[in-house]
Amino acid sequence: MKWNRSLPSGTKDKLFREANGAYQLEKKVNDVVKKRGYQRVDTPMIEFEEVFINEENRLQDCYRFFDKSGRLLVLRPDMTVPIGRVIATAGIQPPLKLSYSGKIFRANTEMLGEQNELTQAGIELIGYSSLKAEIECLTCAVAILETLQIPDFHIELGHAQIFRLIVSTLRLDAKEKRELQIHVENKNLTELARFTVTHPSVFDEFICAIPELFGEANEVLMRARTLLPKESDIMSVIEELETLAGIINTQFPNLSLTVDLGLVALMDYYTGVLFSGYADLAADIFLRGGRYDHLAEQFGDAKIPAVGFGINLDTLVAIQYQTGDLAVLPKPKTLVHSTISWLPQAEALVKAHQDYQLSLFDTLEEALSYGKKWQYEQVIEVTEAGNHTIKVVSES
Amino acid sequence: MKWNRSLPSGTKDKLFREANGAYQLEKKVNDVVKKRGYQRVDTPMIEFEEVFINEENRLQDCYRFFDKSGRLLVLRPDMTVPIGRVIATAGIQPPLKLSYSGKIFRANTEMLGEQNELTQAGIELIGYSSLKAEIECLTCAVAILETLQIPDFHIELGHAQIFRLIVSTLRLDAKEKRELQIHVENKNLTELARFTVTHPSVFDEFICAIPELFGEANEVLMRARTLLPKESDIMSVIEELETLAGIINTQFPNLSLTVDLGLVALMDYYTGVLFSGYADLAADIFLRGGRYDHLAEQFGDAKIPAVGFGINLDTLVAIQYQTGDLAVLPKPKTLVHSTISWLPQAEALVKAHQDYQLSLFDTLEEALSYGKKWQYEQVIEVTEAGNHTIKVVSES
Repeated sequence: MKWNRSLPSGTKDKLFREANGAYQLEKKVNDVVKKRGYQRVDTPMIEFEEVFINEENRLQDCYRFFDKSGRLLVLRPDMTVPIGRVIATAGIQPPLKLSYSGKIFRANTEMLGEQNELTQAGIELIGYSSLKAEIECLTCAVAILETLQIPDFHIELGHAQIFRLIVSTLRLDAKEKRELQIHVENKNLTELARFTVTHPSVFDEFICAIPELFGEANEVLMRARTLLPKESDIMSVIEELETLAGIINTQFPNLSLTVDLGLVALMDYYTGVLFSGYADLAADIFLRGGRYDHLAEQFGDAKIPAVGFGINLDTLVAIQYQTGDLAVLPKPKTLVHSTISWLPQAEALVKAHQDYQLSLFDTLEEALSYGKKWQYEQVIEVTEAGNHTIKVVSES
Repeated sequence: MKWNRSLPSGTKDKLFREANGAYQLEKKVNDVVKKRGYQRVDTPMIEFEEVFINEENRLQDCYRFFDKSGRLLVLRPDMTVPIGRVIATAGIQPPLKLSYSGKIFRANTEMLGEQNELTQAGIELIGYSSLKAEIECLTCAVAILETLQIPDFHIELGHAQIFRLIVSTLRLDAKEKRELQIHVENKNLTELARFTVTHPSVFDEFICAIPELFGEANEVLMRARTLLPKESDIMSVIEELETLAGIINTQFPNLSLTVDLGLVALMDYYTGVLFSGYADLAADIFLRGGRYDHLAEQFGDAKIPAVGFGINLDTLVAIQYQTGDLAVLPKPKTLVHSTISWLPQAEALVKAHQDYQLSLFDTLEEALSYGKKWQYEQVIEVTEAGNHTIKVVSES
């Protein structure tokens, strides 16, 4: 019998405290969203590949396989698209507040150290066009992070329309758009200044400053105002972000809320406010969300507004592990032993005491030796003549 | 944009009450086992195919696919084998009481109506050779089913050694063994009688009666006693089952406990007591378990005794749905609306009342129309001038 002693790249075993802690953490997240009125949706981990394919997305990094009829399946790389499929097929009417938690899969190239099987939780607000939906998302995100006692976390706002409006105002072609995107992403002041010379517009001052337009929300938004013409579309976006930041600051006066007006990364997907969450104790962004019309487009239906976010729970487990907040299993101190015929009485004794544990050993000697090894305080022997307590002298 | 509106064979979406109910049910099961001192283990859903391959098991019905290096992966069809892999590789020492819950996958042929993505929970007692471990398994199983208020459930006992001891005593070759197995499985009295003529032994009377040796535990075991030579190995098996049934009857006087001495189905896997659970409200057996040395054999280590069971939670969800015990989401009766600038005050009001829900609509009209549609009792409008309650006249 050959046993392969390794695991597929990007997967891991969670044992004992980590497994229990991860489970309890997921439950706490689900409790927060349930209390806020979200309704749970559980879609299969296996889907037809077509579900995830659209013009922008060629689905490179998925696990793919065939069903018995030869149809191509994938392990879901995402939860938002399946929820879109549900709305399109199950005949349920927006507005809806939906929540989910579970595994998603990415077939990352080996050796990059990335997780290929991730636990994600999130919400989707479907059918709400109001900025209140963005506020609700952020309120919910903060409520989750505060419940989990994640220290020193930050929420960053952006907006997908800023880059899009520059591109449309400047009438950039695909190549120029790509060029501008690279300069913005690299926060390249020199190249952006050069770009405004060849593509002059009312946004010149703003475009040149983009690399510096990130940091504490109010400061950045106030500076952006001074760089923009009063009646422009981008100014409306800044005003939307000001309203959002204002409400969030009122709700959470101590929250570290930042803005990055140079965010373009996910622009083809999102259509409005973008948000991400990160923390001093974690290297990666663990929360991503925003407003998108992506789902609606795929329905062939009327446009359905949607806002949502997903949280990588594995990152939060790692943070809680560092802070010592990850749920610890209670360590029983009393082992209850009996002969097999007195097991019902022993079981009753264990049931009556929360920190008692039943011995499943045949002999008292084995029970005592186990108690010694695992630092129990006592072994209670249940016999016909009554209960007999033996203090355990620990090995350590 | 093409959207495929169907799901892979054997998968389904769980929505709202069903999704929440299934989640709460899984949580209740995990709470019961946690309270009994089991430690959670979470293994990946993706494993190398080799992990599941052994001489008896060619793994026909798995989803298979390749990683980026071309190694063959599977979606786990089972939880016990991965736990074996953990014990073999993680350097943890038995005895251990382990628990798990999560998805397993079977690539069943289409149109059989079987689920290909199942939710399973279970326990594994590793390193306990005592019959107390079997008792613990049954006690734990009953505790779970009682906690979930599953009505009219039955636990059936069997024993893998009965058939095995007949085969070794009669020195049957592979063909004869297969023949006997078919007669036993078909409960074929005539063929078994004929078989004892060609293969006479001290077990003739017992073998001929096997098709009738099922039903209420004590009755069946008492009858089996009368058919067996006093000092035989099979008599020891009967005595083991008597001890087990005796303790379980004492612990759970109202439990429907049956025995089937003709159980051979999983005999190559299990080595001792077998148990299964079923209920009047479900067509399928939803709980299977028993004692097995299978795991130990694969380690190349010393023999490690193990007992465990797995429960198909989807079946229990279906039962709870029928009985009306599946967790229902509380239906809020009050919708709290405000302008966007009064949202923090509206949020505070919702926070202070468990059954209030926040309106995410832009206008009061939308909030009232939503309230009407979903039978809310009132909409509270939070304004500068104070809170204003509007009774909702329901449409229905």
